[in-house]
Amino acid sequence: MTDANRIPDWIAVDWGTSRLRAWAMSASGEVLDTASSDDGMGRLTSDAFEPALRALTGSWLPAGGLASVPVIACGMVGARQGWVEAAYGRVPCPPLGPDLTRAPGTMDVRIIAGLSQASPPDVMRGEETQIAGLIALRPGWDGVVCLPGTHSKWAEISAGEVVSFRSFMTGELYAALAEHSVLRHSLTAEETEVAAFDAAVSETLSRPERLAGGLFGIRAAGLLDGLEPRAARGRLSGLLIGAELAAAKPYWLGREVALIGAGPLAALYARALTAQGVPAEAFDATDTTLAGLTAAWKDQQ
Amino acid sequence: MTDANRIPDWIAVDWGTSRLRAWAMSASGEVLDTASSDDGMGRLTSDAFEPALRALTGSWLPAGGLASVPVIACGMVGARQGWVEAAYGRVPCPPLGPDLTRAPGTMDVRIIAGLSQASPPDVMRGEETQIAGLIALRPGWDGVVCLPGTHSKWAEISAGEVVSFRSFMTGELYAALAEHSVLRHSLTAEETEVAAFDAAVSETLSRPERLAGGLFGIRAAGLLDGLEPRAARGRLSGLLIGAELAAAKPYWLGREVALIGAGPLAALYARALTAQGVPAEAFDATDTTLAGLTAAWKDQQ
Repeated sequence: MTDANRIPDWIAVDWGTSRLRAWAMSASGEVLDTASSDDGMGRLTSDAFEPALRALTGSWLPAGGLASVPVIACGMVGARQGWVEAAYGRVPCPPLGPDLTRAPGTMDVRIIAGLSQASPPDVMRGEETQIAGLIALRPGWDGVVCLPGTHSKWAEISAGEVVSFRSFMTGELYAALAEHSVLRHSLTAEETEVAAFDAAVSETLSRPERLAGGLFGIRAAGLLDGLEPRAARGRLSGLLIGAELAAAKPYWLGREVALIGAGPLAALYARALTAQGVPAEAFDATDTTLAGLTAAWKDQQ
Repeated sequence: MTDANRIPDWIAVDWGTSRLRAWAMSASGEVLDTASSDDGMGRLTSDAFEPALRALTGSWLPAGGLASVPVIACGMVGARQGWVEAAYGRVPCPPLGPDLTRAPGTMDVRIIAGLSQASPPDVMRGEETQIAGLIALRPGWDGVVCLPGTHSKWAEISAGEVVSFRSFMTGELYAALAEHSVLRHSLTAEETEVAAFDAAVSETLSRPERLAGGLFGIRAAGLLDGLEPRAARGRLSGLLIGAELAAAKPYWLGREVALIGAGPLAALYARALTAQGVPAEAFDATDTTLAGLTAAWKDQQ
């Protein structure tokens, strides 16, 4: 944002299912400009990726020199249904592999691979770049990382490698229930009541089998006891996050946790972990993504 | 279906969220004719119920004598958003209360109340009629009833009363995940592989906290190990039903279970219960509904 007229030395791209974000970067790691669009991977066919990227970043590029500025991209752009498949690295391994995958076309686009785990089977795409960014921001960092989101991830990091990880459908369950179940009638507020959240976390964390009954109980409590929409939202979040924490206990018990993510959702995770006596330090999701993309670009020099 | 030209003595109606079903009945309990439509409660405003019922049953009624044939109805038609609210009976109580609620309009329509429970808060509408039907079909029956469905119910019946019950969002979770989550890519088969179902039931029944991770694991196993769509469907059903059985264990452990419901879903519940050494006897959902509506009609005589 400091010098939008300067030709960037490289371009950083975070290309998820629903959003495309790009940063014009200098060789020394300065952000010269930034841009974003709704051209997420989820709405693009394989031949639509380059036009979408040109539409967003074309004004940064020298005339006739599309191929002269390298682009480093992470996220679902490297999925099988994306621009080109960037085959998963398999844990245990460093979050960034030695090779990036070149996308077809006239631009110089290099895609970071996701990570997979053999047993239990699991995958990530995009989070590996955030983990690499965390390690870049805190050289030598070891510990447990939690990345709340649509598919929340917990990962164990040791000696610069991702040792193991697990994904949970927490965010997607929340969205599917809030939008496509009988609970939509109960969630007419935007706010989340933290007292209801705390109680619900405690319930499913200690008794995770109570999830499916507790979910219907939100509707019943609305009908019978006039449960407020704010409390219903807190209860839905709490039941789901509590059940996730019950499953992720081997990751966080007796440890410190780095939470990658900003905003209300990460704050709820921090609150729930703190209640269990687990210190949680928050890292901004954009900062870690950009630090990870920068680390991948440096590896290419 | 035996005598569609005879004027019925009464009409039985099962009016759910998505379906309206009606039976022309004789005083002795014979089914004279049957009809159904998509005019479920979910798509009707309060003034659209009588026209929908007339459209379906008008040919059974004597000319100019709409009010002369009593209609006994159960289900969501009696919800707050239905035709008229039939206030819940509160357990412990018999499944059918002494009074039905008259719907406004020119027809003689009497609606069966649902049941509620104070703690933990819970509600049912429609299932109380099926439970009453089970008791009518098996006078003196005591035990545990399971009613699989969108909102599965478990109920304890003793001395003709519903003592307690619990609802689980199992069916709605299945539908929301199968249609509105990343799992939709993994469920492209119609069939359910029972081996995958059995293994998944066993997993969440013993470790219910594994639900949210296991759900994402279906997607990961599809990407990494080529998990077949039939197996993915079995695994999704199994994880959800296993988690429900873990929560409902106080109901079924060491008991016999009456399963009300037909078709593949009830068969999966029976399979899962049998694997736990719990005998499950299946009752047809339509038979029990009609027996319950008939019991309510007899109570009115």
